[in-house]
Amino acid sequence: MPLLTDAERAALGQTLPRWTLDPARPAISRTLRFADFIAAWGFMTQIALIAQQMDHHPEWSNVYNQVSITLTTHDPAGLTTNDVTLAQAIDRLAP
Amino acid sequence: MPLLTDAERAALGQTLPRWTLDPARPAISRTLRFADFIAAWGFMTQIALIAQQMDHHPEWSNVYNQVSITLTTHDPAGLTTNDVTLAQAIDRLAP
Amino acid sequence: MPLLTDAERAALGQTLPRWTLDPARPAISRTLRFADFIAAWGFMTQIALIAQQMDHHPEWSNVYNQVSITLTTHDPAGLTTNDVTLAQAIDRLAP
Amino acid sequence: MPLLTDAERAALGQTLPRWTLDPARPAISRTLRFADFIAAWGFMTQIALIAQQMDHHPEWSNVYNQVSITLTTHDPAGLTTNDVTLAQAIDRLAP
Repeated sequence: MPLLTDAERAALGQTLPRWTLDPARPAISRTLRFADFIAAWGFMTQIALIAQQMDHHPEWSNVYNQVSITLTTHDPAGLTTNDVTLAQAIDRLAP
Repeated sequence: MPLLTDAERAALGQTLPRWTLDPARPAISRTLRFADFIAAWGFMTQIALIAQQMDHHPEWSNVYNQVSITLTTHDPAGLTTNDVTLAQAIDRLAP
Repeated sequence: MPLLTDAERAALGQTLPRWTLDPARPAISRTLRFADFIAAWGFMTQIALIAQQMDHHPEWSNVYNQVSITLTTHDPAGLTTNDVTLAQAIDRLAP
Repeated sequence: MPLLTDAERAALGQTLPRWTLDPARPAISRTLRFADFIAAWGFMTQIALIAQQMDHHPEWSNVYNQVSITLTTHDPAGLTTNDVTLAQAIDRLAP
């Protein structure tokens, strides 16, 4: 799983317009809001299945109807295609 | 939780048009199909939360993208408002 | 994913002593009971993650604290190492 | 749901020895580690069912096999019996 090239990183604003690049480390983040906890948890459960299948897991938190997700890769350290693929899966399942 | 009245049972065809009344016992059933297992499991997880909250649990089965649900009440034995409420919640979350 | 050999099928009684071979088709089944719905659903969720990761999904049903699982392979039609692997994962997570 | 009395707050070290009182606000926290993501997610799913049933939801985050949970009550603002009850349920399901 290679790191994103400089061109791929520069294109993240177009590829993943709903995600924010962390200023302090190579990571992208998105916060989502749902109707209630049930909808948030149903969403997280689908992402959990995808993450386990990819063997690429998010850093994420949940408070009631809100889910905040940060994606980064540990080996190699940085942003990889895995992060982009998981972010796109999250965008497809987002409300 | 009282049993449905005869009038309420007779109205089930209008109240829950996607559900089938079991000919052999007081139970209603619906089968749903999803895009894939991930979507089916995300749906079932939301229903699990609702069922636990209601303390009223379905009899259900899953094969990949298909979910079959049967609702009945054990005490009192028969169909109650709990079954109708849970069926309506399922209908709202169905694709 | 090759079908089990005759020797592997004959050894299922030892390999998977808690599973029953279906007399009518090449499938194995096990029924598990849990303390309550919460424990049953926590178990099913872990199996769902493993099944999605394996791309090999069970036929299963749940009624409150009871979970019944049938494993078979569709392509090729019969019992394969996938069924044995998933059954062993289920046995490890069973109470 | 009344706030904990001063005596109940003072006893939290005994009642919930694995939880830490937040120095900055009325909240308690515990971090748990599991064998892997599957075990962590199975645990979180059970807590999600309990939280929805109680209508009392945690602030929590997950990174792979680690789960960090913070409990507080918003109305009334502070620590209540709901927080203690949910913390005890978490302790019972912890590995």
